[in-house]
Amino acid sequence: MTLDILTDLNPSPRLLLGPGPSAVHPRVLRAMSTPLLGYMDPEFLKLMDETVALLRHTFQTANTLTLPVSGTGMAGMETVLANLLAPGEKLLVCSAGYFANRQEEVARRHGIEVVRVDKPWGRPFSAAEFEAAVQQHRPKVAALVHAETSTGAVQPLEGFGDIAHRHGALLLIDTVTSLGGVPLKIDEWGVDAAYSGTQKCLGCPPGLAPVTISDRARAAIQARPTPPDAWYFDLELLYKYWGPDRAYHHTVSGTLVYALREGLRLVAEEGLENRWTRHAANADYFCQGLAELDLTPYIEPAHRLPSLITVRVPNGVDEAAVRAKLRDIYNLEIGAGIGSLKGQVWRVGLMGYSSRRENLTLLLGALREILK
Amino acid sequence: MTLDILTDLNPSPRLLLGPGPSAVHPRVLRAMSTPLLGYMDPEFLKLMDETVALLRHTFQTANTLTLPVSGTGMAGMETVLANLLAPGEKLLVCSAGYFANRQEEVARRHGIEVVRVDKPWGRPFSAAEFEAAVQQHRPKVAALVHAETSTGAVQPLEGFGDIAHRHGALLLIDTVTSLGGVPLKIDEWGVDAAYSGTQKCLGCPPGLAPVTISDRARAAIQARPTPPDAWYFDLELLYKYWGPDRAYHHTVSGTLVYALREGLRLVAEEGLENRWTRHAANADYFCQGLAELDLTPYIEPAHRLPSLITVRVPNGVDEAAVRAKLRDIYNLEIGAGIGSLKGQVWRVGLMGYSSRRENLTLLLGALREILK
Repeated sequence: MTLDILTDLNPSPRLLLGPGPSAVHPRVLRAMSTPLLGYMDPEFLKLMDETVALLRHTFQTANTLTLPVSGTGMAGMETVLANLLAPGEKLLVCSAGYFANRQEEVARRHGIEVVRVDKPWGRPFSAAEFEAAVQQHRPKVAALVHAETSTGAVQPLEGFGDIAHRHGALLLIDTVTSLGGVPLKIDEWGVDAAYSGTQKCLGCPPGLAPVTISDRARAAIQARPTPPDAWYFDLELLYKYWGPDRAYHHTVSGTLVYALREGLRLVAEEGLENRWTRHAANADYFCQGLAELDLTPYIEPAHRLPSLITVRVPNGVDEAAVRAKLRDIYNLEIGAGIGSLKGQVWRVGLMGYSSRRENLTLLLGALREILK
Repeated sequence: MTLDILTDLNPSPRLLLGPGPSAVHPRVLRAMSTPLLGYMDPEFLKLMDETVALLRHTFQTANTLTLPVSGTGMAGMETVLANLLAPGEKLLVCSAGYFANRQEEVARRHGIEVVRVDKPWGRPFSAAEFEAAVQQHRPKVAALVHAETSTGAVQPLEGFGDIAHRHGALLLIDTVTSLGGVPLKIDEWGVDAAYSGTQKCLGCPPGLAPVTISDRARAAIQARPTPPDAWYFDLELLYKYWGPDRAYHHTVSGTLVYALREGLRLVAEEGLENRWTRHAANADYFCQGLAELDLTPYIEPAHRLPSLITVRVPNGVDEAAVRAKLRDIYNLEIGAGIGSLKGQVWRVGLMGYSSRRENLTLLLGALREILK
C-alpha cells in the first residue's frame, strides 16, 4: 500500500447480524456528522445531563452514579471491577460462558482475589445455586452475566440482589447484550453495579460503556483504602466531570455522546417495553424459521436471549464457509462461536436497529439457499 | 427535564479555538455517518491496516507497534505508562506544565516510582538539563511533554533519544497537541514511546489515542515480570488484534476508525511539511494581530507552540467574562488557563481544521470589540 492510492471510504453495505456491532440507526449516523461543542460548553453539559437521564431510564434506575465511560464495553467491565474491588478483596464470578471468564481475567490484573464457580456454558444459575455460592465464598462482590454473548443465554436476576445483600455482598452484572433490548431492571432487582456497551441493543457505534452504580456500591468505592489503579477508569474522578462539579478529567468524545443521546432517545420514543417486545417477537420469528430449516438453537427457549441466538452448526457443515458465503454473496454478517463453542455454533445478533423482521427473513432465505 | 421534551440535536455552530476538541473537518464528519462493518470483516481489517500505515507516516516512524488505543488522549498516556513500567520501576518526569504532572499522577496509580524534576511552567528543558536529570536519577523511562497544552510551549527533542539511551533509559513523550500540526519525528529523535489524541491537530473527534512504541521499548514491555494491571490498555493484547493475529480483544469503534483514517488521509494529502508550515504561519499571523491589540503571548517566540497560543490576560480584565462574550456573541470558544496559569492566560487552539486564517481574523476582530 502506498499512501497516495488510499481510496475514499466505501465499505460494502453489510447487514450486521453478528454479536456486535449491530446496525447503527440512521438517525444516530446522522447525529455523528454534527459539528462538536467544547467539553465545557454549557450546551454540551446540558446534552450530557440529558444523556445520563436517558441512561437511567434505560437501565431502570435512579442511581446517581450513572454515566458512559469513554471506552468500549470491555472498558466498562474493567471500570466496574477495578472500582468496586481493591487489591486482595474477593470477587465471586458465576461463570457459564466466555464473558464471565473475562471478568475473572480482568479482575486478576488488578490483584483482586477471584473465586469462580462454573456451570456448563449456557446454563443459568438458579437463585439457590447463586445463594449457595455467595454463602460459601463470602465475596465482597458477586458477578453474573445477564446476557452471555458467547452462549446466547439470559441469566434470570429477580431476587438476586436480595440474596447478595443478605450475605453482605454486592451484585455486579454484565448487561452488554441486554441493555435496551432485553428486560433489565437495575433497581427492582437490587443490582449494585452494571456495565454495558453502545454497539448492541442501543443501535449506536462502539466507543462508550454505560455504567451504573448503586449508592451502596458507591459507598464501598468511597471506603476503599486506595483509589483504583486505573486513573482513566476512576469513577469518582469521572463523576467529578459528569456530576455537578464539572471538573476536567479527560476530553470526552462529543461525537459519541451525540450518538448515545440519539440512540437513547430512540429507545425512549419506541418505549422500553415495546422495544423488549420487538426483540422477543423477532427472536421467536427467527427461531420458527430455523426450525423450518431443521436448524436448532443452542439454548432452550426458557433461557434464550432474544438479542443473540446461537444456532447449532449441523453435522458435516463447514461453518466458516457458510459465514463467508453470507458475507460475500448476501453482504450479511453473522458471528462464529467463541471459546468452548468455537466451531459448534453460529452467533446471530438481533439487536437494536438490526432486530427487524425483514433482516431475519433475508438471513433465513440466504441460509436456505446455502444449506440446501 | 422530562423524557418527552428532549429536542433534536441542534448545537450552536461554535468555532472551536480552545485547547481541544478542535473543529472536525467536514470530510471526517461525513465519514462518521458511514454504516459500520464488523470488527473482523476483511474490509474493516484492511481499513485498520491503512489507518496504521497513515499513523506511522504522521508519527514519522517505522515502529511495528503503532495503533490507536480505544480511548481519549488520557487513555493513551495511561496505556504507555502502564505498559512501559511495572510497579516499583522508576519514571523520571520532566515537568514544566500541567500534563507532565498528569504523567506523574497516572503513573503513581500503577505503583510506578516517580521522580519529578521541575522547571517553571512554560520553560523547556535543555539537552544538558535533561541529561543531568537522567544521569542523576537513572530511570527506566524518562518522560517529557512535546507540546504542553497548559502553557503553549514546545519542548525541543532533537538528540534527546540519544541522551536517554546513553544512560540506559527509554524516552517517552506526550504528543497530544503536536501530532499532525507541529514538527514531530519519532524515529529521527530516538523517541521510544509516544501517545496522542485525535481531537487536536488531526481534526478528528476525541475518542482514540494514537500510540507508537519503538522495538527497544517493546522489548522492555515483553520483558516485564507481570503483564500491565490494566487489561484494556495491554499493548501486547491490543497488538494481537491490530497485528496479523487478529485475535478478538474488544470491539473497536468502527466509526472512530473511519474518522481517524479520513483525518490522516487529509494529513497525507496536504503533506506533513505543508501542514506544519500552515500551523506555523497561522500562529505568526495570530501573534501579529495580538500585538496590534496590545496583547502578549505567554511564551517567548523561540518556544511557542504553533498549535496552542497562551495569551496573557491584561490587568483588570475579567477573563471569564471575555470568554463568555466570545461564546455568546460570536459563537467562538477559547480556553481558560489551568493549573498555575488559571486566571492568568487564555488558551487559543490553532489546531487542524481550526487553524485557518479567517478563524483568527474573526477571533482578533471579536477581541478588539470586546476589549476596546
